[in-house]
Amino acid sequence: MFTPKPIGFVHSPFKDAAAIPKGLGAKHPEEGVLEILPAFAAGLTDIEGFSHLIVLWVFDRIEVSDGFDLMVTPPTDSRPHGLFTTRSPRRPNPIALTVVELLRREGALLHVRGVDMLDGTPILDIKPYLSNIPEEKLRRGWLAEAETRKG
Amino acid sequence: MFTPKPIGFVHSPFKDAAAIPKGLGAKHPEEGVLEILPAFAAGLTDIEGFSHLIVLWVFDRIEVSDGFDLMVTPPTDSRPHGLFTTRSPRRPNPIALTVVELLRREGALLHVRGVDMLDGTPILDIKPYLSNIPEEKLRRGWLAEAETRKG
Repeated sequence: MFTPKPIGFVHSPFKDAAAIPKGLGAKHPEEGVLEILPAFAAGLTDIEGFSHLIVLWVFDRIEVSDGFDLMVTPPTDSRPHGLFTTRSPRRPNPIALTVVELLRREGALLHVRGVDMLDGTPILDIKPYLSNIPEEKLRRGWLAEAETRKG
Repeated sequence: MFTPKPIGFVHSPFKDAAAIPKGLGAKHPEEGVLEILPAFAAGLTDIEGFSHLIVLWVFDRIEVSDGFDLMVTPPTDSRPHGLFTTRSPRRPNPIALTVVELLRREGALLHVRGVDMLDGTPILDIKPYLSNIPEEKLRRGWLAEAETRKG
């Protein structure tokens, strides 16, 4: 496979995982900064033209040796669901994905809205967000059911 | 960090990278199968309710030791752009992301539409696709410009 290495780190208002709104559908209006390491900064050329970015990052505060459960009861429901239908941080590969809105770039600093990472989180990759799934085709499984049950 | 390990493999009609439609905005109507390893299959519970899945996978046919360029001229444009505004497979971390439509599940086999991976590609993670960015807020930088230039 490959050896993951950070291309940068997140500056976030969240110093403590308990403060981060959790669960599918949680809102994340907080602003933060993605600081890209100097060795990779030239790879940001032309990024200002994109309104949204996909950030791949590592759940680095999770002990991988603790393992994971294949059935998970998420914060947004009282029933257990398959791990791969959730955003649980305890996964076979502790990789997370967040779509952020790019507010502005300052050299190797990307000011963004929508951070849900802890301060200091290592970033693995940034990709442009390009297209949506047509709304009429999108089904959100147990999350939609849980929302309906909650009224 | 962590040591990436496959949770499964892709069965795809693509045996050769040259056959895969490339570049931002390329269409991928092909069907394929995500075969999840038995050790992880219980994590698929309830996945049938979701119409679309985010698949994280590895560009495993790329020689990581070949390195990467921070400026890339993508297939869809004649001008170079920053690596992190492209989907180039040669990246600091060779992780790819594809959103697929889930057609049906057969045990640990997920039949999907929208594969752009080579046959045998290792899968790192599957996450539910939950929400879109409002269309009126989405800007696609140089890709939109390149499309305009092409007419």
